[in-house]
Amino acid sequence: MNDFEKLFDPKAIAIIGVNEKPYGGGYFLSCLKSIGFEKPIYLFNPRLKGEKVLGYRVYGSIREIGGERPIDYAIIAIPAKKCPQILEEVGKKKVPFVTIFSSGFSEVGNKYLEQKILEIAKKYNIRIIGPNCLGVYNPKSKLSISRWQNSVPGKFGLISQSGGLSINISNISIHSYSTNISKLISIGNQIDLNVIDFLSYFKEDDQTKIVGLYLENLKVENPREGKEFLKILKEITLSEKPVILWKVGYGESAKEAILSHTGGMAGSHKIWKDMAKQAGVILVNNTLELVSLAMAFNFLDFRKIERNKLGIIAVGGGSSIELTEEMEINGLKVPALSKKTKDKYQTFLPDVNTIIRNPLDLGGDGLMPNIFGKSLLTMDQDPNISIVIFIKPYYLTKAFSDAIINAKNQMKKPLVCIAPKIRDNLEDFHERIAFKKALFDVGIPIFESVDLAAKAIKNLCNYTEFLDKHNHSQN
Amino acid sequence: MNDFEKLFDPKAIAIIGVNEKPYGGGYFLSCLKSIGFEKPIYLFNPRLKGEKVLGYRVYGSIREIGGERPIDYAIIAIPAKKCPQILEEVGKKKVPFVTIFSSGFSEVGNKYLEQKILEIAKKYNIRIIGPNCLGVYNPKSKLSISRWQNSVPGKFGLISQSGGLSINISNISIHSYSTNISKLISIGNQIDLNVIDFLSYFKEDDQTKIVGLYLENLKVENPREGKEFLKILKEITLSEKPVILWKVGYGESAKEAILSHTGGMAGSHKIWKDMAKQAGVILVNNTLELVSLAMAFNFLDFRKIERNKLGIIAVGGGSSIELTEEMEINGLKVPALSKKTKDKYQTFLPDVNTIIRNPLDLGGDGLMPNIFGKSLLTMDQDPNISIVIFIKPYYLTKAFSDAIINAKNQMKKPLVCIAPKIRDNLEDFHERIAFKKALFDVGIPIFESVDLAAKAIKNLCNYTEFLDKHNHSQN
Repeated sequence: MNDFEKLFDPKAIAIIGVNEKPYGGGYFLSCLKSIGFEKPIYLFNPRLKGEKVLGYRVYGSIREIGGERPIDYAIIAIPAKKCPQILEEVGKKKVPFVTIFSSGFSEVGNKYLEQKILEIAKKYNIRIIGPNCLGVYNPKSKLSISRWQNSVPGKFGLISQSGGLSINISNISIHSYSTNISKLISIGNQIDLNVIDFLSYFKEDDQTKIVGLYLENLKVENPREGKEFLKILKEITLSEKPVILWKVGYGESAKEAILSHTGGMAGSHKIWKDMAKQAGVILVNNTLELVSLAMAFNFLDFRKIERNKLGIIAVGGGSSIELTEEMEINGLKVPALSKKTKDKYQTFLPDVNTIIRNPLDLGGDGLMPNIFGKSLLTMDQDPNISIVIFIKPYYLTKAFSDAIINAKNQMKKPLVCIAPKIRDNLEDFHERIAFKKALFDVGIPIFESVDLAAKAIKNLCNYTEFLDKHNHSQN
Repeated sequence: MNDFEKLFDPKAIAIIGVNEKPYGGGYFLSCLKSIGFEKPIYLFNPRLKGEKVLGYRVYGSIREIGGERPIDYAIIAIPAKKCPQILEEVGKKKVPFVTIFSSGFSEVGNKYLEQKILEIAKKYNIRIIGPNCLGVYNPKSKLSISRWQNSVPGKFGLISQSGGLSINISNISIHSYSTNISKLISIGNQIDLNVIDFLSYFKEDDQTKIVGLYLENLKVENPREGKEFLKILKEITLSEKPVILWKVGYGESAKEAILSHTGGMAGSHKIWKDMAKQAGVILVNNTLELVSLAMAFNFLDFRKIERNKLGIIAVGGGSSIELTEEMEINGLKVPALSKKTKDKYQTFLPDVNTIIRNPLDLGGDGLMPNIFGKSLLTMDQDPNISIVIFIKPYYLTKAFSDAIINAKNQMKKPLVCIAPKIRDNLEDFHERIAFKKALFDVGIPIFESVDLAAKAIKNLCNYTEFLDKHNHSQN
């Protein structure tokens, strides 16, 4: 494991190539300011020497900083061709970690410049993140790469070959799925520190319990590196940390686009699929699939889900069928209820308008919060059921969230909510937000569509099965 | 074609089994009141005889209404076993159309009661919708079955075997996708009027340009009916009205749930797939796929899309790849730009941070509304491109919507927007709503995810291809 303490919790930061606007180097400063980074920030730009930006003094060069002020982490945001010279200066200051934000390297065919930078880095023992990336986000140390990221540490660790997507993923995760980040690394061209280094870190990091990856290519120069990648992935998944991999490069145009983005070959789709299967890694296809699955793992204890046996509760026959259909399309099982459960339902549900089976259709009685809550509890007690799922498009009132939370507190099995948006209007927005917050606060994941819910639950069950199989073959 | 004028635009309505609460018969009254139905409404319930509900007088029985006041349409919301007697009374009043809301018929094994009702209907020449359904919604005549439905007639006609889902679909369509309804029919158990009758109506209805179907089963008693269904579907699709079919019943539990919901066999999945292919009908799997595709047809003129050739514009390399990847997974093509287009882009995009290819990555320059608009226009002029798609998760400002609308007004090819939600907060909500409204108003469809956009565009292109093939074989 690499010792990344100085990277993730630097005693002081340098931004080389800062400016007055929230672009380029100024972007990083605005992010650190937004999140409230508390350690010293040193800014550099010969053009702004002696001036102040956002209250911080700007220096002309890192040489002006005395040795008694050690900088643990530098962000370089200057044109690519100037990077070697600046890196020499950074090296002489003994800065251990550097993120090179600048683009214009191998992704535009400039391999030579990357080589040169790597040589300088080795000479001074600097570890490089990038180039062509945003570096790291760590809520705990208030190190941020987006003005919307928060300082609440979570369990979800993310490694991304795209800086932009790492921002999208983390912001959706935090602000729409109530799933906070442990650490995030935008790795870019990976000329020095690469995905394997940060996977090794996540393997040991106590805070990271879920690993997410966005990858365009591995940049494997030799087969040994491929084996190493597979090995570390398997070590993580077997240590009960799920790994969610979004690997792009399926189609021809995507492959070409990747070449000009991070400068590497996307590789065969089949090889990646085989690799994922072998390592117990879960494959997803887009931002929402990645984030909604991370949310599922964030809120549900997959070790408690013995089997893929879904209990479904809906208001309305069609709605109950839509949910069942989507689950079955995704290979999930919706077993029959036990006789005891049916009898129990008959004691408090009317004959008219409700259909007592799995999926349970509550009909008009689903509009009564106490009946809704009691139905969840009853489903929880059925031995044929391992997860309880309900869909709630209407009446996201406090009476309902109270009833659901009350049931959840007495339930033994995982509870999942699907709350599809019906109207994009202010009234419904306020109701939805309050409802979501209440449920998130007690650990209920909330999906926005049946499709995303089904995919996430299927993947969660697949991962549990992978672990079971492995443990079985070990005994 | 059936003459459904009195059903869709009744001169007077009867609600038999009304009550004071917005449930049962009272539900229909509250819907008609909400939308502002302007014709007479007669209410019936012996228990409430002489009282008033929502300002309307309640009668004990339909026999009390004089012959000079003809009722075109009656909604019956009383227990199933009482339906035959009431239907006799309705028949004597010469009411031509009746919706039976009541459940408790073949879906719970009560086939005999359905038979009895059908006999009475035939005797009096009454046409029945249902039982076990909600009947019809027609914005033009302000006939509504949900308190959220509006009175703005649209192009999207819907036939649904689930009343609840017909409400979800229409409300999402109207309030989140800016796609209004022409007419909607919740058909229930179809003992008399069935899906074929209403398809025949939609075929001739000038207002309906897009047909949506939610079906659980066909209730085909003989093979002739199956052929008739296929024939009418093909007639509609070939008349350039796309048909979107959401047919459920893929898995075992869904099939069983269907049996207890609408009382029919779901049938083989393969037979339905083959039938759809033959008829040029588009299959979808859930509410959001159905609604987002209806929106695509509502806003885009599919006859203008010569070929499946996508031009993609994004801000950020990863984002551009996500969009390209999703399109290619769905079998869509993202061709190379012409030299002329690339040269044009080079005149106004900087070398740094942007990547000029398809997908176009605008980098930081994508934050400038005028550059964004100019990029759309330039893409539109490329002969290799037939549809222009852009993704916009951030900065949904007025400056941007103005620039996009300005470009759209000069463009010749269809323009599609994907605006994924990042943060579920009030500030972003207000911005999103204003942005969406502005774009919808000039006819730009807005998808909420890359997945739904890709599926809809693929289906739109497939339909165009189906028509091309047919026209080609005709010539």
